[in-house]
Amino acid sequence: MNTVTELQTKMQQVVSVVKSTTPLAPSITNTVTINFVANTQLAVGGSAAMIYLPDEGITLAQMANSFYLNSGTLEPFYTETFPATAKAMHEQHKNWVLDPVALGIGTMRTNLMHEFKSYKPTIIKGNASEIIALASLWELIHHQDSTVKGVDTTDTVDAARQAAVALAQYTSGAVVVSGTDDLVTDGQQVIMSHGGSPMMGLITGAGCSLGGVINVYATSTDPLTAALTGVQIYNLAGQRAAELANGPASFQTAFIDALYHATAEEIAHNPFDVEAI
Amino acid sequence: MNTVTELQTKMQQVVSVVKSTTPLAPSITNTVTINFVANTQLAVGGSAAMIYLPDEGITLAQMANSFYLNSGTLEPFYTETFPATAKAMHEQHKNWVLDPVALGIGTMRTNLMHEFKSYKPTIIKGNASEIIALASLWELIHHQDSTVKGVDTTDTVDAARQAAVALAQYTSGAVVVSGTDDLVTDGQQVIMSHGGSPMMGLITGAGCSLGGVINVYATSTDPLTAALTGVQIYNLAGQRAAELANGPASFQTAFIDALYHATAEEIAHNPFDVEAI
Amino acid sequence: MNTVTELQTKMQQVVSVVKSTTPLAPSITNTVTINFVANTQLAVGGSAAMIYLPDEGITLAQMANSFYLNSGTLEPFYTETFPATAKAMHEQHKNWVLDPVALGIGTMRTNLMHEFKSYKPTIIKGNASEIIALASLWELIHHQDSTVKGVDTTDTVDAARQAAVALAQYTSGAVVVSGTDDLVTDGQQVIMSHGGSPMMGLITGAGCSLGGVINVYATSTDPLTAALTGVQIYNLAGQRAAELANGPASFQTAFIDALYHATAEEIAHNPFDVEAI
Repeated sequence: MNTVTELQTKMQQVVSVVKSTTPLAPSITNTVTINFVANTQLAVGGSAAMIYLPDEGITLAQMANSFYLNSGTLEPFYTETFPATAKAMHEQHKNWVLDPVALGIGTMRTNLMHEFKSYKPTIIKGNASEIIALASLWELIHHQDSTVKGVDTTDTVDAARQAAVALAQYTSGAVVVSGTDDLVTDGQQVIMSHGGSPMMGLITGAGCSLGGVINVYATSTDPLTAALTGVQIYNLAGQRAAELANGPASFQTAFIDALYHATAEEIAHNPFDVEAI
Repeated sequence: MNTVTELQTKMQQVVSVVKSTTPLAPSITNTVTINFVANTQLAVGGSAAMIYLPDEGITLAQMANSFYLNSGTLEPFYTETFPATAKAMHEQHKNWVLDPVALGIGTMRTNLMHEFKSYKPTIIKGNASEIIALASLWELIHHQDSTVKGVDTTDTVDAARQAAVALAQYTSGAVVVSGTDDLVTDGQQVIMSHGGSPMMGLITGAGCSLGGVINVYATSTDPLTAALTGVQIYNLAGQRAAELANGPASFQTAFIDALYHATAEEIAHNPFDVEAI
Repeated sequence: MNTVTELQTKMQQVVSVVKSTTPLAPSITNTVTINFVANTQLAVGGSAAMIYLPDEGITLAQMANSFYLNSGTLEPFYTETFPATAKAMHEQHKNWVLDPVALGIGTMRTNLMHEFKSYKPTIIKGNASEIIALASLWELIHHQDSTVKGVDTTDTVDAARQAAVALAQYTSGAVVVSGTDDLVTDGQQVIMSHGGSPMMGLITGAGCSLGGVINVYATSTDPLTAALTGVQIYNLAGQRAAELANGPASFQTAFIDALYHATAEEIAHNPFDVEAI
């Protein structure tokens, strides 16, 4: 189990490494927020690359240390691209980040999530409803009805705690439940990160782009540190942007600018609590 | 026929209901402006969800009270997704909003619009050229040559008045013709809504996102009120944003912020005229 | 060979013509930056239209004087749409702009670039790695290993000079190599355009949208003038936006606003050097 100080040190390290190396952090992600994902990745120091085709997924899986898979807007050919990419990352023992957006809508999404079980995403990030639904689908918890409303959650972060821990223990990775306070767990400890702003729920893609930024950090550190660093910079930048914003769009602009200016030390010292499970 | 006061009351009601219920307002829309559509929907209080696959359309058609279909960037699988979704909404007697973007370009678009005739969109929103082209295609008016230039209109709102009324009478719904002043009709009365800004023509998706915002309101009121409320908040926010903007991009930011701040009373009292047909 | 004064005169002419005619400037481009491409095209006075389907490409190829093809995010049906559109433009002796984004990733991209050789794009715009890779693929230079990192270059503009000249001589068109200073050549002379900002590398789509803006100008002038005008307005607007920006997102807003305000005379007089080859 990591102490607060150990986590802070690891966070500072990965932020610095990313800023000095501009790591390639590819994604297969939805068309709604794809631009926002790329711009947040660039703002924190990553190199973004988005693809649709299976062989491109496999090629980038060779080149990159981490990959982001987001199921927001599925297209027919994703039945091949998604599993091929996840498999390639898994077989190379590399990190990959799964954002099971809108799990429960449509059969392709459910089928893909079933397939992903064997490719064990090293980081899973979702809202409470999605995390509960995924842990239920993978039969890691007793079935809970999580009444997904499109892409929005209807459950609280606290309600998803058991599901998150179960997923992290199954994957031996990290799980993020985004919400008012964000939960991060590696199955051994639960970390609650504070900050952010209600404004983040008023722009599309706050969650998707968090997955993209975690992916950038996951190129250069372990899953728990990557997940926590992403959550911390989001809570820090969200709070700062809210002070400057006059509405959702000016918030979004200020938010990306705040991501860009956040220093390693500020990110590491955004408030968070650690507890054993 | 509604009086001005009745329309104002209905508008205030739907704006308040939407802000307190965050209704699911799904879309199948083009990749150019999909992010802007989602962000405007969130700014007025809706919950956005965009999809591509047929079974997802049918699933969301069960969950949502209104759906937005925009033909801007057609992909091959839309031949199935679009009609399946429109049919599902029609059979459930729910609202759905059609934006016949770029009608006249390509055979799939024309074929889809033919199919939509039997699924009677309860709200149709387009620029003057698109409204004329759709009424001609559905043989509701004598054929007029509307010389579409890509996605931009080459006709005036006034020239599309007869076409708009004919479409509304055929669908028993509402029709919006966007332009300098915007026309809204239910086939019984014609409403002209004033305001906006020439800047709206300098950002891509002013029209698409209006369709998305009307879709949000259409989850919670009748077609005429939904269409008028959308047009009114757009004219109000457009005018306010233009006062703050230094160009198209700062206009877009100020516009979304203004959508977010517009109150039910302000929206209802944006200037508009009502006349019988 | 054009003198500086001749080039300035031609640039002023095309900027004025575009602002007064709003020419249709269609694109097949990637989903990451498609919105930014459209908004920059509108800001400089063009009319944007994006499509995916083959027959729509052919239809717009009849209507428009120039077309933009960007290979950023390939989808399966592009094997038909891309060549059909390029062929239609070539056979009509019209301009078309190729942005060979991420050349080297995946087999479809390589195959498409092979096909494009016979449809001779009148303008090619890429970063140094892409320009070297394309000239190598077309066997116009001795093979150089250009180690593409996703969509980012790992080569300098200077290293791509020979490749750019060879491509321009082969197509009898113009080639742009984007970088700190931007190179433009028609195979007879090499022009270096100065300005811009490092911030342009921190927003996704600076390069893609430059291709889109060049496409707007290419509707109304020769390839060299179109390419140079696009590069000049980008360097001018980039520099101005950097003075106002507080980070990448506020830079992007200021950049589009600066594109909108740039006058023909300012664009023509942004610093550039001309040399014979």
